[in-house]
Amino acid sequence: MRTRAAVALEAGKPLEIMEVNLEGPKAGEVLVEIKATGICHTDEFTRSGADPEGLFPSILGHEGAGIVLEVGEGVTTLKPGDHVIPLYTPECRECASCLSGKTNLCTAIRNTQGQGLMPDGTTRFSMLDGTPIYHYMGCSTFANHTVMPEIALAKVRDDAPFDKICYIGCGVTTGIGAVINTAGVEIGSTAAVFGLGGIGLNVIQGLRMAGADMIIGVDLNDDKAVMAKKFGMTHFINPMKAQRPVVQEIVELTKTERDQIGGVDYSFDATGNVQVMRDALECSHRGWGVSVVIGVAPSGAEISTRPFQLVTGRVWKGTAFGGAKGRTDVPKFVDWYMNGKIEIDPMITHKLSLDEINTGFDLMHEGKSIRAVVEY
Amino acid sequence: MRTRAAVALEAGKPLEIMEVNLEGPKAGEVLVEIKATGICHTDEFTRSGADPEGLFPSILGHEGAGIVLEVGEGVTTLKPGDHVIPLYTPECRECASCLSGKTNLCTAIRNTQGQGLMPDGTTRFSMLDGTPIYHYMGCSTFANHTVMPEIALAKVRDDAPFDKICYIGCGVTTGIGAVINTAGVEIGSTAAVFGLGGIGLNVIQGLRMAGADMIIGVDLNDDKAVMAKKFGMTHFINPMKAQRPVVQEIVELTKTERDQIGGVDYSFDATGNVQVMRDALECSHRGWGVSVVIGVAPSGAEISTRPFQLVTGRVWKGTAFGGAKGRTDVPKFVDWYMNGKIEIDPMITHKLSLDEINTGFDLMHEGKSIRAVVEY
Repeated sequence: MRTRAAVALEAGKPLEIMEVNLEGPKAGEVLVEIKATGICHTDEFTRSGADPEGLFPSILGHEGAGIVLEVGEGVTTLKPGDHVIPLYTPECRECASCLSGKTNLCTAIRNTQGQGLMPDGTTRFSMLDGTPIYHYMGCSTFANHTVMPEIALAKVRDDAPFDKICYIGCGVTTGIGAVINTAGVEIGSTAAVFGLGGIGLNVIQGLRMAGADMIIGVDLNDDKAVMAKKFGMTHFINPMKAQRPVVQEIVELTKTERDQIGGVDYSFDATGNVQVMRDALECSHRGWGVSVVIGVAPSGAEISTRPFQLVTGRVWKGTAFGGAKGRTDVPKFVDWYMNGKIEIDPMITHKLSLDEINTGFDLMHEGKSIRAVVEY
Repeated sequence: MRTRAAVALEAGKPLEIMEVNLEGPKAGEVLVEIKATGICHTDEFTRSGADPEGLFPSILGHEGAGIVLEVGEGVTTLKPGDHVIPLYTPECRECASCLSGKTNLCTAIRNTQGQGLMPDGTTRFSMLDGTPIYHYMGCSTFANHTVMPEIALAKVRDDAPFDKICYIGCGVTTGIGAVINTAGVEIGSTAAVFGLGGIGLNVIQGLRMAGADMIIGVDLNDDKAVMAKKFGMTHFINPMKAQRPVVQEIVELTKTERDQIGGVDYSFDATGNVQVMRDALECSHRGWGVSVVIGVAPSGAEISTRPFQLVTGRVWKGTAFGGAKGRTDVPKFVDWYMNGKIEIDPMITHKLSLDEINTGFDLMHEGKSIRAVVEY
């Protein structure tokens, strides 16, 4: 079949909207009609050429929602008409990682996915002249139709709006999951969130859900504080305007009569800046602070600290897709949205057509959007 | 009163054995006759002048065992005749850290202890000319008698030999505690231990107690493997002789038919070398590997890695005194030694008199001792 897609032909160039060929699903695969997709910084990381593993030509996009149109041989858990969210972190429930019970990082199709290929080592997309087009993060939601492995699709309820729940395919789950799965924040905790973009806001609403007492937001842009407060932020620090280095500001802010040491119980980096990751670790509490790296750092960048920070009880960890097991947890996130337990609507600041997709990248660069969503 | 002590008069100089003045215990303090003390790398770190926080003149030593001679006003949990192990990490059971239930890093007397002083801001030791002598790590076990806060003494059973259980005051508890308290190793785990000195051997016996399946020891000195095998090491790697970088060696060694990713479930740095700390993190398993920093790094040295290591599920943490709560846990370790659950005897390789204490430092430098113990 043919479908319309925004194709990344070369690194650093705008996406080009065009007709492409799409082969039907092979064994274990599913054809999905994408109804909506968010535009995420990770797409931009690859589009821009900053991603050393970026492949071209490819169809980017990994934050979508859609409907199953056709299933390949042997597919048993999905059928045409099912509503689904694509998963860039699949859940095979059979590999050593899935069976460990300790991680969401399923490895069943990791190698081929990293090479922009379906599990059989080929692509389903091609240019009209036959040139193969690479898949992206196993999803390629910047196409109106895509083919995905069955294990990389979460079946969700039918009554949830695609233009909102697509955000659960990455940002919402990453932010909230970092709090509830990776950090395991307890009621009454103190926390700091570095970076109040789309991920940071979701960390904040995760902290509110988890019952944190103090939720400190940190951003260089004062304007970000307005929305962050709505999601539960209790204190805001703009490091450019603070009297002291941000680590010290946070330590002072969290000192109490009973605890003269200070530092937050949990901290989260949602910036991708390695110096900020260090600050996030070092503002966490001596003895038990847990700091979670969420942001994707530039290629080759390294985090550093004195080992004394760890020896005195701080824990440095990271999260991918919020530690969520996609097929198991994503349907729950959709329920939570539908039940009003989590908010998404205020974060979807722009709606675009596929033809306007490059505008979505512009809005991101200008800091004007939290999430721009393309509706097909 | 007067007592005999090995005094560190200046950085980098041998200790000098001399008579010193010792004031009796003030309120909340206890006079202890030290019966035996180990010589640890941390003492050498300070003696040599490498420790930027080192104070002189001071009486070093922090790995001792002895008998209570006299208690100060208000001391209720100890009485003359009690056998005790000094704790450089006290346990007040009242500060925010103790009450958190999340850390052993009691902060009740942290500030004064770091300044070489008793909690009231003065020293009990002085030279015969009246010059104050600093305490060290709140212990100063290189004196035949010392004064310590009640909260920094663990009461232990009377039938345990001082020349063995003194090692529980630091090395044994640090190594075993890193496994059982900080890492929380489960039965059937795989683990790597970097550095097969006194701490590394105790990590290994901790792993054996915890039921680890595979215990990989890493050291530049083949001779260290002999003793390590006796304590439970199952595989040995000498990075100087290995074909591939040690991280890759460990990853390959741990791959199984069911798990083609490889990497150990738990890793431990017992070297203090920041490059080794990085290797320890990076040889741990994608998705769930936990790496524990035990060693003390040179002043100013920093650990680094790509944040991707954390984002893909590795956890970097550290331990001080093996995460053990001294007054609660140290008596249990003594019981375990007496019951044969843990071994100490083969690690006490040298016995010295106080007059021979500088020989103990020489033996450490020459790599000839695991632990040299001074008996008074």
